[in-house]
Amino acid sequence: MVVASGSRDKTGFFTQGVKLKATMVDMARSMRKLGQEDPRRVVHSLKVGLALILVSALYNYHPLYSNFGTNNTIWMVMTVVLVFEFSVGATLGRGFNRGIATLLAGGLAIGAHHLTKNLGRVGEPMVLGLLVFLQASISTFLRFFPKIKESYDYGVLIFIMTFSFISVSGLRGHVIFKLAWERLCTVSIGGAACVIVSILVLPVWAGHDLHNLIALNIEKLGNSLEGFGDEYFKTKGGEACNDDKEILEGYKSVLNSKKSEESLANFAAWEPPHGRFPFRHPWKLYLKVGTLARECAYRIEALNGYLNADMQESSEVSNIIQEACTIMSVESGKALKELALAIKIMVQPSSTDSHIDKAKSSAKNLKSLLKSGIWEDIDLLKVIAGVTVASILIDVVTCTEKIAESIHELASTAQFKSAEPTLSPEKLHSGQMKCVKSPQILNCPHVVINVSESTPPSSPSESSSAPKASKQRMDLYHLFLAQDIS
Amino acid sequence: MVVASGSRDKTGFFTQGVKLKATMVDMARSMRKLGQEDPRRVVHSLKVGLALILVSALYNYHPLYSNFGTNNTIWMVMTVVLVFEFSVGATLGRGFNRGIATLLAGGLAIGAHHLTKNLGRVGEPMVLGLLVFLQASISTFLRFFPKIKESYDYGVLIFIMTFSFISVSGLRGHVIFKLAWERLCTVSIGGAACVIVSILVLPVWAGHDLHNLIALNIEKLGNSLEGFGDEYFKTKGGEACNDDKEILEGYKSVLNSKKSEESLANFAAWEPPHGRFPFRHPWKLYLKVGTLARECAYRIEALNGYLNADMQESSEVSNIIQEACTIMSVESGKALKELALAIKIMVQPSSTDSHIDKAKSSAKNLKSLLKSGIWEDIDLLKVIAGVTVASILIDVVTCTEKIAESIHELASTAQFKSAEPTLSPEKLHSGQMKCVKSPQILNCPHVVINVSESTPPSSPSESSSAPKASKQRMDLYHLFLAQDIS
Repeated sequence: MVVASGSRDKTGFFTQGVKLKATMVDMARSMRKLGQEDPRRVVHSLKVGLALILVSALYNYHPLYSNFGTNNTIWMVMTVVLVFEFSVGATLGRGFNRGIATLLAGGLAIGAHHLTKNLGRVGEPMVLGLLVFLQASISTFLRFFPKIKESYDYGVLIFIMTFSFISVSGLRGHVIFKLAWERLCTVSIGGAACVIVSILVLPVWAGHDLHNLIALNIEKLGNSLEGFGDEYFKTKGGEACNDDKEILEGYKSVLNSKKSEESLANFAAWEPPHGRFPFRHPWKLYLKVGTLARECAYRIEALNGYLNADMQESSEVSNIIQEACTIMSVESGKALKELALAIKIMVQPSSTDSHIDKAKSSAKNLKSLLKSGIWEDIDLLKVIAGVTVASILIDVVTCTEKIAESIHELASTAQFKSAEPTLSPEKLHSGQMKCVKSPQILNCPHVVINVSESTPPSSPSESSSAPKASKQRMDLYHLFLAQDIS
Repeated sequence: MVVASGSRDKTGFFTQGVKLKATMVDMARSMRKLGQEDPRRVVHSLKVGLALILVSALYNYHPLYSNFGTNNTIWMVMTVVLVFEFSVGATLGRGFNRGIATLLAGGLAIGAHHLTKNLGRVGEPMVLGLLVFLQASISTFLRFFPKIKESYDYGVLIFIMTFSFISVSGLRGHVIFKLAWERLCTVSIGGAACVIVSILVLPVWAGHDLHNLIALNIEKLGNSLEGFGDEYFKTKGGEACNDDKEILEGYKSVLNSKKSEESLANFAAWEPPHGRFPFRHPWKLYLKVGTLARECAYRIEALNGYLNADMQESSEVSNIIQEACTIMSVESGKALKELALAIKIMVQPSSTDSHIDKAKSSAKNLKSLLKSGIWEDIDLLKVIAGVTVASILIDVVTCTEKIAESIHELASTAQFKSAEPTLSPEKLHSGQMKCVKSPQILNCPHVVINVSESTPPSSPSESSSAPKASKQRMDLYHLFLAQDIS
């Protein structure tokens, strides 16, 4: 029995060891992945370590130590840990909040101490207690104001903490001036260490991140739209490319980007001029572009419901709708990708209008063709899905136009350079933007349809990418049946 | 000159005084509004004050003071300010994080101190510095893991801080055990004060909030859909009701509710059983319902683009589409409102299926009518918007069905009571849900169309709310023109 139990123990121990090893390997793998996804994460981690080392070294510097003593020096360490954030803007914002709040709360606490010092051994703690209660309650309530929550939440927290602590300490007759002064000095030293390391060692600018995020989001929308035209009508011959689904669903990350955009814009407002971004760069306008991009993403999400439906047979109406839809989605996609590029390299968007015009004229053609009254014996049921897609795409074109307008506004307010005439969307592929970085995309040429306005694409065979009839024939009836809810 | 300048000074002073007064009045007004919107905010603020007072009183309690000294007692104040959050779950989560992190970091720092104490005056600070650097860098990197960021971010922060502080203090040969022990005690006392006040004085449960938020969001979708049927087809006679726009756009707040739902679910996981929510209540399922609700909201956002279009003339096709759309949107809306009610009062949803069935059979009828081939001379352009609305609504019905399924799953997993047969959606109006709380809504009866499955609404006149032909005639052509993008 004992032996059996012993061997079971050993087996258990061995199994646990193997499990532990597997967990460690998994963890190491995901750490590596996290670091590869954004190497600035590794740099940030090392920067925090560096700032702490700096502060520790200061602690060991004798004159400082003998002035402030052990327990106050903790504020340096604490400030570094709590103030050091990923981006310069966030660090500056927190540092500023902490500094100002400490100063204010220290001053007010000293005032409170002076007011109450003649109230006697019973009155003083009671009045001070009341003051602590009042300031904590009022300040906590202030944190519910959206504007305060957005930019000064941390400051209010530090205010409550510092005021309470200094007031409470005052009760025991400590040298309160010294306490407040030491706190301010140590907090300033800690904050300065953060700000210096944050700015001097490979700085991460929130403004830069916001700029890239907006450009990337617009580009994702463009890719999804461009891919949608091909995917929906299966105009692309041969097998599907691996990246296709990923690109098509790129817009999904745009749906929920509101919070990150807002916090980046908020941090960016704290940042000094840097790189290509001068003082008073219009960060708020990026939020406007972001909101419009999200509205466009909602439309694409609605479109996406029609993607996975089957279609087999074709009809004249379907062909016309298909032609127009392909042009609308591909041209809107191109326009968005050029707008993304324009933001990214900070030039005035130039050739976007021609793409939007093509999409708009395609919508117009579709309407006049539909109106021409040659559809006498159609089965309405067969065209319903196609008509829906067309109608949502017309909405998407409107969204694209609005996005273009907002980016034009951004470009003129932020004084982007004038466009080079040689600019081509292919340049996008050379950028950092992840969803087009993959070389596989080069193997998946999207269909490009050139339609001059003088020759409306009334007959699909005129288009330069006239899809093969055999591949492309579709039946909207089947498409519709596929989403039958009954 | 002197007199003039003096009077200008006085005027300036007076103007500034008036401005200051206006600002103060504004501020007081918005504080009052904030408090009225959610009175728990006021209660929370007072609770923070109370917890601080409790801790201050402990500070004045002599035995504790003489044991820990001034500077360590700050940890009590700090813990209260940093740990006390709005909901019990968030407070428990932060308290747990802070406690465990302090214990762990204290233990490790003492270990590090013991390891390095024989390394001499030069070696010790260097090795300790290296350890501080390593732990800070690794821990900061760990904060980038989404799972750690979600639940243990604050703990990691406190770990870095405590380890660094105790290690650095150790350099000067302080009684390091005493320091770590005191920190742990004061942090525990502060944390306990928070948890006790948070749970005993009018507790705010994150789980309860999540439950209500999901119910409210589903209800908003229901209201928007129910209103949409009326608004789009202008079936409602007389002037529009004031609340209409607000109700119709209620779904907009659902679009961006992901982050709040996630953080509430995260806090709820920390909470003990409370009220109607037992141990292991399936909080994750609420997130599933929330995701499906958002998908439905995206569809409604796409629908909303067709709301503000004009329509004047009518045609047979338009009438049929209108009938079907009204039924689909009103019945989906009713189903969603009943689902919201079922969540709110925690019973199994019962009559929802009949509403969904009505919506589905209406979709089916529409399809068979469109297919019947009696449309020989229609202008496709005139029906495009109507067809789009119908098609998106069919999608919405599918979404509603999915939401119903997920709520059925939630109801069975969370063991909701069986439904009372007398349950009616009117009960909703008696609840806390804000968007229907207003008495004005009672003056805006939404059109209710009763369609039994045996009598499909093939002829609009059979429906109990047969809209007047004169009011209802519409021309989809004009609707379509209104969204002309060229």
